[in-house]
Amino acid sequence: MNSFDFYNPTHIAFGEGKIADLNKLVPAEARVLVLFGGESARRTGTLDEVTTALGERQVTLFGGIEPNPSFETLMEAVAQVREQGVDYLLAVGGGSVIDGTKFVAAASVFEGDEWEILTQGGRNIERALPFGSVLTLPATGSEMNKGAVVTRKSLKAKLPFHSNHVFPAFSILDPTKTYTLPLRQVGNGVVDAFVHVVEQYLTYPAQAPVQDRFAEGLLQTLVEIGPQTLAEPENYQVRASMMWTATLALNGLIGSGVPQDWATHMLGHELTALHNLDHAQTLAIVLPAMLRERKAAKLDKLVQYGERVWNIRDGSAEDKAEAAIAKTEAFFESLGVKTRLSDYDLGEQHIEPLIASLESHGMVKLGEHGDVTPEVCRRVLQASL
Amino acid sequence: MNSFDFYNPTHIAFGEGKIADLNKLVPAEARVLVLFGGESARRTGTLDEVTTALGERQVTLFGGIEPNPSFETLMEAVAQVREQGVDYLLAVGGGSVIDGTKFVAAASVFEGDEWEILTQGGRNIERALPFGSVLTLPATGSEMNKGAVVTRKSLKAKLPFHSNHVFPAFSILDPTKTYTLPLRQVGNGVVDAFVHVVEQYLTYPAQAPVQDRFAEGLLQTLVEIGPQTLAEPENYQVRASMMWTATLALNGLIGSGVPQDWATHMLGHELTALHNLDHAQTLAIVLPAMLRERKAAKLDKLVQYGERVWNIRDGSAEDKAEAAIAKTEAFFESLGVKTRLSDYDLGEQHIEPLIASLESHGMVKLGEHGDVTPEVCRRVLQASL
Repeated sequence: MNSFDFYNPTHIAFGEGKIADLNKLVPAEARVLVLFGGESARRTGTLDEVTTALGERQVTLFGGIEPNPSFETLMEAVAQVREQGVDYLLAVGGGSVIDGTKFVAAASVFEGDEWEILTQGGRNIERALPFGSVLTLPATGSEMNKGAVVTRKSLKAKLPFHSNHVFPAFSILDPTKTYTLPLRQVGNGVVDAFVHVVEQYLTYPAQAPVQDRFAEGLLQTLVEIGPQTLAEPENYQVRASMMWTATLALNGLIGSGVPQDWATHMLGHELTALHNLDHAQTLAIVLPAMLRERKAAKLDKLVQYGERVWNIRDGSAEDKAEAAIAKTEAFFESLGVKTRLSDYDLGEQHIEPLIASLESHGMVKLGEHGDVTPEVCRRVLQASL
Repeated sequence: MNSFDFYNPTHIAFGEGKIADLNKLVPAEARVLVLFGGESARRTGTLDEVTTALGERQVTLFGGIEPNPSFETLMEAVAQVREQGVDYLLAVGGGSVIDGTKFVAAASVFEGDEWEILTQGGRNIERALPFGSVLTLPATGSEMNKGAVVTRKSLKAKLPFHSNHVFPAFSILDPTKTYTLPLRQVGNGVVDAFVHVVEQYLTYPAQAPVQDRFAEGLLQTLVEIGPQTLAEPENYQVRASMMWTATLALNGLIGSGVPQDWATHMLGHELTALHNLDHAQTLAIVLPAMLRERKAAKLDKLVQYGERVWNIRDGSAEDKAEAAIAKTEAFFESLGVKTRLSDYDLGEQHIEPLIASLESHGMVKLGEHGDVTPEVCRRVLQASL
């Protein structure tokens, strides 16, 4: 186990009806801006439920935060915060709305060019407005971590930032709020949570048995409940497990004290930035090929993963590793998330621009050993055609 | 999964050399009281390392906090805090010192009779001095939770309290600080952490697969590293896993959203209060008999525990449950922690006073179903003779 610091002050309020707790979770005097995505928040009644729970507080709304939230849209929210003297933010939605709210929280009180929050990865954030979230889509873990990803459309750049100042003060997780989600988003959520765990687990043995067991427990649970949560949208218990699993997949816990990879995410971000694929689709495309490409370096953990998560018992280490990757690929497909570039009408001709974009963002030494170069990424993309 | 609230703001600084971080973790202007137990903190040099790291800050010391910290001793520390205008506490030691520091933190600024903090279970705590800890003994999890247990010698009462106000602001976990621990304390620590997990896991199926997997992961890890950490005191990696496992065993995470038991702890507390046994010794005595007594109600989880933690594959459900309990008992014995009342020179004649004490503390409906009555506890004690 490596040395680490772990800190996560987000208060989780979990269960049916917890939106009513907003009245005690948000300060009584707060002037609140509620941020949300599309019209589903309004249509499903969640937005009404939220504003009712906020009672007499001054509440204004900002809708239209898109999937892969854009700097352009978020800066409109920043302007609204500044104009209206808002001092508390509330995100109602999934990872995109929460990520966007984190940016608005930091940018609203940032001195200087707000784009530099992204180009500096958040290191220059010195304060942020407090905010909470009401989660409606289990997937990204943003509801209980300090990271976010924002896309600047005009530059075709999708960049992450991190700061202790952007932990949500609280997040409300009510599984019933996921019942009306489109199945495509549900399947994407399972893949996203799964790959978050994999990025913190499938590296090399690091004498961290608890972190390994926790990661394997999350993956086993996703394998078990993934198909169920698609088949039975109103099964409360299954949706509850899905929601809590996705949160724990990326709240800093399982990654503490162990090496981390994230090459699949960084390459995936370029696919979204250039071709507007769903985040989880990019992960489903990149991960299997990335694992095959780096099978030798990851062999010990791939075998452990195969044995403990997929119950693979037969064959050589190499066989087990390949079987584990094939199982992963088949799992993504079974959730309705396609795993090939060609499934999304992308081909050979799209590879070089993706590599150029990766290089332009300085993503040239990725992975737990820093040896995932653009050349490696090119082979990965070729293998995922 | 049940509804729940999870909140844990303690900052963990983990790894060799992390004591040096005190200089950034403790506010620069703090007037610090360092609380510790016996002379080992001084002898091993940890106390010097701590005061050096605190630099120019005003630092005074309070030593002599005993195992199962007493109200009487802690009130002396409270007097010192008030006299010296201390505004920050730092616990250096194991669970007893940290528990004691939590009480001092709350009692120093409490208006009224401080004993009522215990008789009210902490519900009457409205504020507390901020404090951190430097952990030297992995066992109780106190370094990352909001609970503590204090004994009032004059009343032979050992009572718990809980409050969000007594989370440590930070805890420093340096595995090398455990190298010089007596093996008895190390074995006790493994048993203590193990039983903490069991109390939150071995109840009834609650459709909480992630909590189950996490609990099983902690138990599997303790089974794996328990003997090693006794045999190789200076094996950094094993001690590191032991330390992190014990912290995660009782930081609120695995108990969120699931039923909890705690009958073994409550009965064990009476054994400590009346006969001064080590906390872990009382758990090792009570748990196996408690599980056998309640085997029918806990059957499903006992079977799951047997299969997943002990790899028990053969026999009926009843056979598997009994085999799992026997394995648990043998595990405690293998760590040098005896599991019978007679091993500690206690016999039949000691049972009634223990039951009377339990009743006098209102502990008459224990366990996840509230059906562990004094009569049940009597049978448990008789079975552990």
